[in-house]
Amino acid sequence: MNSFGKRFVFTTFGESHGKAIGCIVDGVPAGIKIDESFIQGELDRRKPGQNSYATARKESDKVEILSGIFEGESTGTPVAMVIYNTDQKSKDYSNIKDLFRPSHADFTYFHKYGVRDYRGGGRSSARETAARVAAGAIAKLILKELNIEILSGIYAIGDKEVKKIDFEYAKKSEIYSLDKNIEQKQKKIVLDAKNAHDSVGGIALVKIKNSPVGLGEPIYYKMDAVLADAMMSINAAKAVEIGNGIEIAKQKGSQSNDQIDKNGFLSNKSGGILGGITNGEDIDIKIYFKPTPSIFQKQMTIDKYGNETICELKGRHDPCVAIRGSVVAESMAALVMVDMLLLNMGRTISNLKKTYNK
Amino acid sequence: MNSFGKRFVFTTFGESHGKAIGCIVDGVPAGIKIDESFIQGELDRRKPGQNSYATARKESDKVEILSGIFEGESTGTPVAMVIYNTDQKSKDYSNIKDLFRPSHADFTYFHKYGVRDYRGGGRSSARETAARVAAGAIAKLILKELNIEILSGIYAIGDKEVKKIDFEYAKKSEIYSLDKNIEQKQKKIVLDAKNAHDSVGGIALVKIKNSPVGLGEPIYYKMDAVLADAMMSINAAKAVEIGNGIEIAKQKGSQSNDQIDKNGFLSNKSGGILGGITNGEDIDIKIYFKPTPSIFQKQMTIDKYGNETICELKGRHDPCVAIRGSVVAESMAALVMVDMLLLNMGRTISNLKKTYNK
Amino acid sequence: MNSFGKRFVFTTFGESHGKAIGCIVDGVPAGIKIDESFIQGELDRRKPGQNSYATARKESDKVEILSGIFEGESTGTPVAMVIYNTDQKSKDYSNIKDLFRPSHADFTYFHKYGVRDYRGGGRSSARETAARVAAGAIAKLILKELNIEILSGIYAIGDKEVKKIDFEYAKKSEIYSLDKNIEQKQKKIVLDAKNAHDSVGGIALVKIKNSPVGLGEPIYYKMDAVLADAMMSINAAKAVEIGNGIEIAKQKGSQSNDQIDKNGFLSNKSGGILGGITNGEDIDIKIYFKPTPSIFQKQMTIDKYGNETICELKGRHDPCVAIRGSVVAESMAALVMVDMLLLNMGRTISNLKKTYNK
Amino acid sequence: MNSFGKRFVFTTFGESHGKAIGCIVDGVPAGIKIDESFIQGELDRRKPGQNSYATARKESDKVEILSGIFEGESTGTPVAMVIYNTDQKSKDYSNIKDLFRPSHADFTYFHKYGVRDYRGGGRSSARETAARVAAGAIAKLILKELNIEILSGIYAIGDKEVKKIDFEYAKKSEIYSLDKNIEQKQKKIVLDAKNAHDSVGGIALVKIKNSPVGLGEPIYYKMDAVLADAMMSINAAKAVEIGNGIEIAKQKGSQSNDQIDKNGFLSNKSGGILGGITNGEDIDIKIYFKPTPSIFQKQMTIDKYGNETICELKGRHDPCVAIRGSVVAESMAALVMVDMLLLNMGRTISNLKKTYNK
Repeated sequence: MNSFGKRFVFTTFGESHGKAIGCIVDGVPAGIKIDESFIQGELDRRKPGQNSYATARKESDKVEILSGIFEGESTGTPVAMVIYNTDQKSKDYSNIKDLFRPSHADFTYFHKYGVRDYRGGGRSSARETAARVAAGAIAKLILKELNIEILSGIYAIGDKEVKKIDFEYAKKSEIYSLDKNIEQKQKKIVLDAKNAHDSVGGIALVKIKNSPVGLGEPIYYKMDAVLADAMMSINAAKAVEIGNGIEIAKQKGSQSNDQIDKNGFLSNKSGGILGGITNGEDIDIKIYFKPTPSIFQKQMTIDKYGNETICELKGRHDPCVAIRGSVVAESMAALVMVDMLLLNMGRTISNLKKTYNK
Repeated sequence: MNSFGKRFVFTTFGESHGKAIGCIVDGVPAGIKIDESFIQGELDRRKPGQNSYATARKESDKVEILSGIFEGESTGTPVAMVIYNTDQKSKDYSNIKDLFRPSHADFTYFHKYGVRDYRGGGRSSARETAARVAAGAIAKLILKELNIEILSGIYAIGDKEVKKIDFEYAKKSEIYSLDKNIEQKQKKIVLDAKNAHDSVGGIALVKIKNSPVGLGEPIYYKMDAVLADAMMSINAAKAVEIGNGIEIAKQKGSQSNDQIDKNGFLSNKSGGILGGITNGEDIDIKIYFKPTPSIFQKQMTIDKYGNETICELKGRHDPCVAIRGSVVAESMAALVMVDMLLLNMGRTISNLKKTYNK
Repeated sequence: MNSFGKRFVFTTFGESHGKAIGCIVDGVPAGIKIDESFIQGELDRRKPGQNSYATARKESDKVEILSGIFEGESTGTPVAMVIYNTDQKSKDYSNIKDLFRPSHADFTYFHKYGVRDYRGGGRSSARETAARVAAGAIAKLILKELNIEILSGIYAIGDKEVKKIDFEYAKKSEIYSLDKNIEQKQKKIVLDAKNAHDSVGGIALVKIKNSPVGLGEPIYYKMDAVLADAMMSINAAKAVEIGNGIEIAKQKGSQSNDQIDKNGFLSNKSGGILGGITNGEDIDIKIYFKPTPSIFQKQMTIDKYGNETICELKGRHDPCVAIRGSVVAESMAALVMVDMLLLNMGRTISNLKKTYNK
Repeated sequence: MNSFGKRFVFTTFGESHGKAIGCIVDGVPAGIKIDESFIQGELDRRKPGQNSYATARKESDKVEILSGIFEGESTGTPVAMVIYNTDQKSKDYSNIKDLFRPSHADFTYFHKYGVRDYRGGGRSSARETAARVAAGAIAKLILKELNIEILSGIYAIGDKEVKKIDFEYAKKSEIYSLDKNIEQKQKKIVLDAKNAHDSVGGIALVKIKNSPVGLGEPIYYKMDAVLADAMMSINAAKAVEIGNGIEIAKQKGSQSNDQIDKNGFLSNKSGGILGGITNGEDIDIKIYFKPTPSIFQKQMTIDKYGNETICELKGRHDPCVAIRGSVVAESMAALVMVDMLLLNMGRTISNLKKTYNK
């Protein structure tokens, strides 16, 4: 259950304050040039401690590839990657050893497994997502060969939404904001929350450009369903929207339908997916992140023995998980795309014949 | 790819205008009393042609169980169910044989498979969801034994949201509206759209009551991720929200956190799920449905040869797919719950020992 | 758990004396011409009651296709097939209602599920394999398009092995014997066993001709491992051998290695598979079937309450399950091959680029 | 495709001469005491270089656990283990860089992936099986809690079979021979082959003691089918037999049936499995290993350009892979058992109710 995908499958391991985190990526086609600096670059985009908008935990997130590459190219065998943890401060957590942080997975993991790995959230920590980004980097190297691009950025922080979407700008923004003109207001919301020992929610936007038509499997492995699964699996994600999904749920069909002429679709309210299958337009996904539950204010809670107590956190936490979450969402989109590209390969007998030269 | 679930797996088949639709439900525990009238009753809640708010297609949706039951009880072997189609009017579709309905899966299925099964949308038709409801009825019979209840209703039609949520009322409402006082306005929106040869979107709400704590598998088979997958796989669903996910994405952590005292959680903005695992509170899911794409107004489109043309539909379609979609969403929730209950059974060694009397 | 395959997946349902048996075949590429008479012909090869070497149960095994075909071609959607049971004689089983037939699955099903579907073995009956043959026929139609052929026959009955292997002769033989000169002796062994109210074991041989090089996935979905899984899942199969596996386990490497020259392999003791991947030579599989456990002699047993009793069977049973089992084994081989062909499609980036015209 | 299992899933990575090999074990129940010295001990049983009957390659096979353990107990999260390679001698392989060793996976991997990782066989090397043994050790720790024991040993070397089976003796034997009186003859066969620059085949026997009744899932995840899959996935395995499967294929039902009295089964020719489900008797599995294909005699072969050439190997190889293979087979049996124990947990509604205290 720590794996994702059907044909391009990655499996992650590791706890926030354990020895290491990492992943195995299985189903990598042979012959991909593996640029390790690109993979490290992807991890650097997600890594903590880079500026005042993220947690102060400093992790170099140096990735080591253990297998699957020979003479710089993928061999078709599984690619294992490991990232050793270096900046664990487990004692920060000793005062919450026995209590449950409100709205945190502490409570549910303990009740499921009967174990309380209190050190930084254990497996439930967003630290696990570094392994997803490493796997996602492999996926992106494959997508590059097929000229498919994945972009991401911050659409909203708190109630402040962007107006003009500029993915190029987002790449340079410290908070990955999609709009230069809104960025400062969004930054202020983050810092205000942080200074108030609070946190704030946000919305990330992911766009997949240049998808082939026809990706997505009916009926229970639809492109949109799998994207929803992928995105909702990210820590703190609580809603997922394809295209203009929430807006058009209030509209008439005559408003929401994407009509077509010989040059293609006249609009893209569907977000690039019809009937669970890509139509060749941009795939647009919005991911709604709740505020980080770990805040530094006093909150009512109970301990594992059922006693009421007050939760006063120490430790280091992102004031807005949506920011670094957007990089994870982008990675998940890349991983889904590669899986779908592979799954789609046997859709017609002519496709089979072409592969086997018959 | 026409299967859903890992331990409790159902697989559906059938096209809108083919001979039959149906499903195989695998992983049904032995010893469940199978009340066939309950299963038929569930199908009746979803079936078309019951009132002016749904498509005029008349299908009795009579379900026949072919296997898996002996002397009124499940035997542990797969339960196959078949529903023969009776009211196909494929000639209604002859005028759209070669063209693509805007925002419909026509386009994407054709480009994926190179085949145009124009009769009523073929496999992409929402008719497939009758099979999900049949499977969901089996799931509900299992949940009853464990005292878990699934409820559903219409939260919004167009921009008209309910104010007070009453699942008991929804059961009697022709449009499954959750609020007696809003129902008439919602009905009017549906009829207005219908009379204007148009359609309208809506939002369904599903609630799971009395879930055990601890369901959901980390990291990639989280309860919320699988629910999102399940819901997004329903025809016309374009967004999924857990708890107050969209609202709290705009809030501070101090507002959105669910604090705890010895009697339990003081609020449930998380919608019953923390870190992908149930916390014992009600699980709340909202599903955002786009308007039915099949409307009876003139729309620009192209045919399968790429020529521009005008789409003028005949056929019979729901003016608001959210209404009957809410029943499907309820079924999907039941199916997910049973899968999660089964998957969770080996979570601790003490649980294993208890099962095997060691 | 009633499904087989990863990309080409079939799921079966049905009990020996229930209403019907059948299957859903998922992952069928679009564009295959579906010759229904061929499918029926395959079922006819397996069906009971054809001669004195098989059970006297008469089933027409008439298959009805419910979905997945449009205008004579596969559409890419699931193909559901149903075979209604017609010649159940459940009362034959009333005298064994509560007791366990020695070496039969009666005992284990009851202890697993707490249910005793005594009618003809219920789900554990080899009747289920008719559904496999129907699914296998779809697989064979796909293999035909790729010029891959699957052959089968009886290699041994009791201790009488064939000497010269002739698959063409086997097609005409009532017991599918591979050797015209041995057939009569093999027939006599079957009839002698039958007349003595006994049964007899046997060995089936399956050959896959013209397989592409490179099929089979490392490390845990190897061609030979999946074939072993497939074959061992057939009722009464107790051993599986690839190539000359049992003989070469006694040899030296210098004897068993298949050397190579520019025209190819100089021998094929490996049975067409090296490291779990096909090498382009014929794939040879032997399946060892135990004697039918249902014999008509007095045997010691217990009933479901633990009381000792004597088992004296009525009912109708094959004196040698290997005979009809060979047809099932051939079908399973076809199903595995299609799955492997599909899985292999994304093995290299150049293969992906070719599919997506990049 | 580098994963095995459905509920207890392990995934391996790594090449013979790469940086490291290892695995992730997913689905480990929480609360298992993890004895690291036991895990290392299991690896030591398989590791090379221990005596003259195995390859001269020296690997300490020191395992490092990276995750999934907290305070000495499993937490329910994935257990990742890594074994760094230390004694690679890749230059031994430079002279075979471009040619294919007869009966080796060299040929098939190259044709599948278009890549020639000539260093020690790359991923196809039996070195990968160390990761299986590490995973199997976790499985054994679980089985111990349930009092289930897995035993193994060498049944035959070349044509020399044991007569009396003694698993306790096998534990101490350098070649894991099951019979003290046959061991010397078996050893001589190995050394004779080795001295002749040749190799020899053999048969391993695995026994599972104290299995609960009822394990194994119908129809396509039968205990025997999954064991066959597991065993056939081991390098050089070419046949798998359950119980007396090969012998009884030649017999009558009256000879092969296991009759029952109130004390249980009177014989165990079925090898503990009926209808794919365990009957509580010992589960017996024989695995037939071909001779190591890598021998040091001159053999005809071709290179990757199709030119005929002579293969003269250097490098270090086991003269009889069955010996260390028996340890791997034992591990695979343990892994299958845990998977089956977990899968079986939802077989009845009463089992579900017991787990959820309803």
